[in-house]
Amino acid sequence: MNWMKELPQMGLKAKIAARALAQAQTAEKNDALLAMARSLRDGSEEIIKANRLDLEISKAAGLPDSLMDRLTLSSARIEAMVAGIEEVAALPDPIGETLKNWTNTAGLQISQVRVPLGVVGMIYEARPNVTGDAAALCVKSGNAVILRGGKEALYSNRAIAKVLTEAISGTSLPTESVQLLDTSEREATIALMSLRDLDVLIPRGGLGLKKSVAENARVPYIMTGMGNCHIFIDESADIEKAGRIAINAKCQRPGVCNAMETLLVHRDIAAALLPELLAKLHSLGVELRGDEQVLKLFPEAKLATTSDWSEEYLALVLAVKIVRGIDEAIAHIAEYSTGHSEAIVTENWTNARKFQKLVDASSVYVNASTRFTDGSEFGFGAEIGISTQKLHVRGPMGLEHLTSSKYIISGDGQIRS
Amino acid sequence: MNWMKELPQMGLKAKIAARALAQAQTAEKNDALLAMARSLRDGSEEIIKANRLDLEISKAAGLPDSLMDRLTLSSARIEAMVAGIEEVAALPDPIGETLKNWTNTAGLQISQVRVPLGVVGMIYEARPNVTGDAAALCVKSGNAVILRGGKEALYSNRAIAKVLTEAISGTSLPTESVQLLDTSEREATIALMSLRDLDVLIPRGGLGLKKSVAENARVPYIMTGMGNCHIFIDESADIEKAGRIAINAKCQRPGVCNAMETLLVHRDIAAALLPELLAKLHSLGVELRGDEQVLKLFPEAKLATTSDWSEEYLALVLAVKIVRGIDEAIAHIAEYSTGHSEAIVTENWTNARKFQKLVDASSVYVNASTRFTDGSEFGFGAEIGISTQKLHVRGPMGLEHLTSSKYIISGDGQIRS
Repeated sequence: MNWMKELPQMGLKAKIAARALAQAQTAEKNDALLAMARSLRDGSEEIIKANRLDLEISKAAGLPDSLMDRLTLSSARIEAMVAGIEEVAALPDPIGETLKNWTNTAGLQISQVRVPLGVVGMIYEARPNVTGDAAALCVKSGNAVILRGGKEALYSNRAIAKVLTEAISGTSLPTESVQLLDTSEREATIALMSLRDLDVLIPRGGLGLKKSVAENARVPYIMTGMGNCHIFIDESADIEKAGRIAINAKCQRPGVCNAMETLLVHRDIAAALLPELLAKLHSLGVELRGDEQVLKLFPEAKLATTSDWSEEYLALVLAVKIVRGIDEAIAHIAEYSTGHSEAIVTENWTNARKFQKLVDASSVYVNASTRFTDGSEFGFGAEIGISTQKLHVRGPMGLEHLTSSKYIISGDGQIRS
Repeated sequence: MNWMKELPQMGLKAKIAARALAQAQTAEKNDALLAMARSLRDGSEEIIKANRLDLEISKAAGLPDSLMDRLTLSSARIEAMVAGIEEVAALPDPIGETLKNWTNTAGLQISQVRVPLGVVGMIYEARPNVTGDAAALCVKSGNAVILRGGKEALYSNRAIAKVLTEAISGTSLPTESVQLLDTSEREATIALMSLRDLDVLIPRGGLGLKKSVAENARVPYIMTGMGNCHIFIDESADIEKAGRIAINAKCQRPGVCNAMETLLVHRDIAAALLPELLAKLHSLGVELRGDEQVLKLFPEAKLATTSDWSEEYLALVLAVKIVRGIDEAIAHIAEYSTGHSEAIVTENWTNARKFQKLVDASSVYVNASTRFTDGSEFGFGAEIGISTQKLHVRGPMGLEHLTSSKYIISGDGQIRS
């Protein structure tokens, strides 16, 4: 693909497709989604073949095992993608919903109705199944999308996009509803970040991508999934609950953004809690990095350095710090948190409320694992990412967060005086 | 002011102030607003003296009359600013409102509550009264603000900010809730656009500022007030209503973003409507630029060039085009509209609905003047600008659009399986 020539064309086509999509009936969009799901299932073999090519190239290039796993497609994973698209088809259509309706003092009837954003640019990394998820969520919410997957998944994404667009071309929706920026050149990603036809850019990936977006984006974007999440175990915590929550938040799926990265422990509960909890975490394969007081209670831990407090490990590594109380915990979180998910374990009513009030994050928990910050767990049905910014949407992003609104104003000749 | 040294400090101070402001009680914020209003009234003389200095400098520099008018402060205009702040104090506090509240399948109680955005950066041009309005709206919505007014209003803004911050320093709110980036250097504006401590940047001004923001901003922003607004007079329009609406939309206040810039007329009503309407507009001082068909009906008009269709005159100038019907009108709007406010005048039910459905703008009118797109007219009480983007907010921005939300999640030891 000669992307320098094609990208402006893709932008234009997406814009035209978006106009048609915005007017599409719910049944038309659902038909297209079901056709996409079928086509994906039918193309399974072809996609797995393409994926094998990506895997070979990435293996030769020495891609780490964790990324190799994310890159791998199997018939089970393709079937999960198919099921995901079918689920999106079953969700209610957010478009056309009346959000507010009132009559102003001049007698104008003002209705705020939900409309699509328009053209979405989606940049993501190794996991090729995002191609199907993102395409489905955008189509359902009436948005055209330009997809830009990771270079490791070039052949897989090409194969997936091929079956998806073939499916769409057989429906009443414009084929250009879903387009893939099909090149491995890094410059193409940068160019997409400043494509003026985009109404929003959604980057999904690691710190490198996020820094690049902050530097290069020239269109509005939604930053997703930066998660340096903390759990603070207060003096009054129930030790059994505290252990259960900490182990779940660290170990259940360490590679995701809502996993715990730092455990903060009140000094008056540390001796009763930590030796057993840290031994348990250690036995589950967690590398522990603690401050000096932690090392006294659990000498197998390594000494943490300042950089440990800001690191998002996304792995079986945990920073542990003993604090003098809730105020120090809240101050530590204010300094190092990325504003994703933060939790307190406590039986103290006043401290629970204080934590809920003072901690500034998308999701603030009392006595629950941070792992719940997720579109499905929240009941949104599906999710395109977890926003860690405050503008437009904060926390898990479902279909309705891929929308905007417009005011429809009905009058009888009113003029302004 | 050595802004290169001070701006990072201002960012840090704003961030600290924002934390305190987010927790402030409604009564504390209202007390501060009323103190600001009083202080402004008491400082009236001092402010007018500073304003005279700005006026002298701008006159010598040959600032156009329209901008000189915007720059001028009188006791009446200061009193209007005072009244505006008092009105904001009387509005309901948006912070703390529960937007949604539900229990998920794991039994977690999830509450979405409204919180401030944090730190707002506000860039505006000649009108110094924006300094008071913006400060009041930000304080009420619990946001710290860094104000950056136009260089023409340097002394006026300095005097206004001085009385405002003096007033705040006598209250329980942090003095740094409101800060002024007090320099006339252009580079300071660019530096503010990439100040990482900002949660949102709100530029309010002309095309030059908007282009600069699109190029230089490195923080999320809300683009405001680009208004190339159209009115389409359909074949079936009531001629009296059509004339009244067109004259109001063009002449009532031509320098604002919701004024009409292009009039589109169905060819089958043109002969009955245009000669009289254009003569009336002409007599009101409107310079008319029409296509060839328009010139046949009203020879005093000048011939429009293609650039007239995209121009936002913000003055008593109007482009006029005759179209074959509603489809051509909608296509013309789709090509040239900035997505602010668009209107149809029609008595035809189906065409009214078609226009409402197909036109993509913040506010789409049937049989009413575009001039109603305004926070006060919509009933929002006050407005910090009119968003012409789709992300976060579209249309008039009131207090609630200066907010974000967070999820507060209450559990009993839940973990994710």
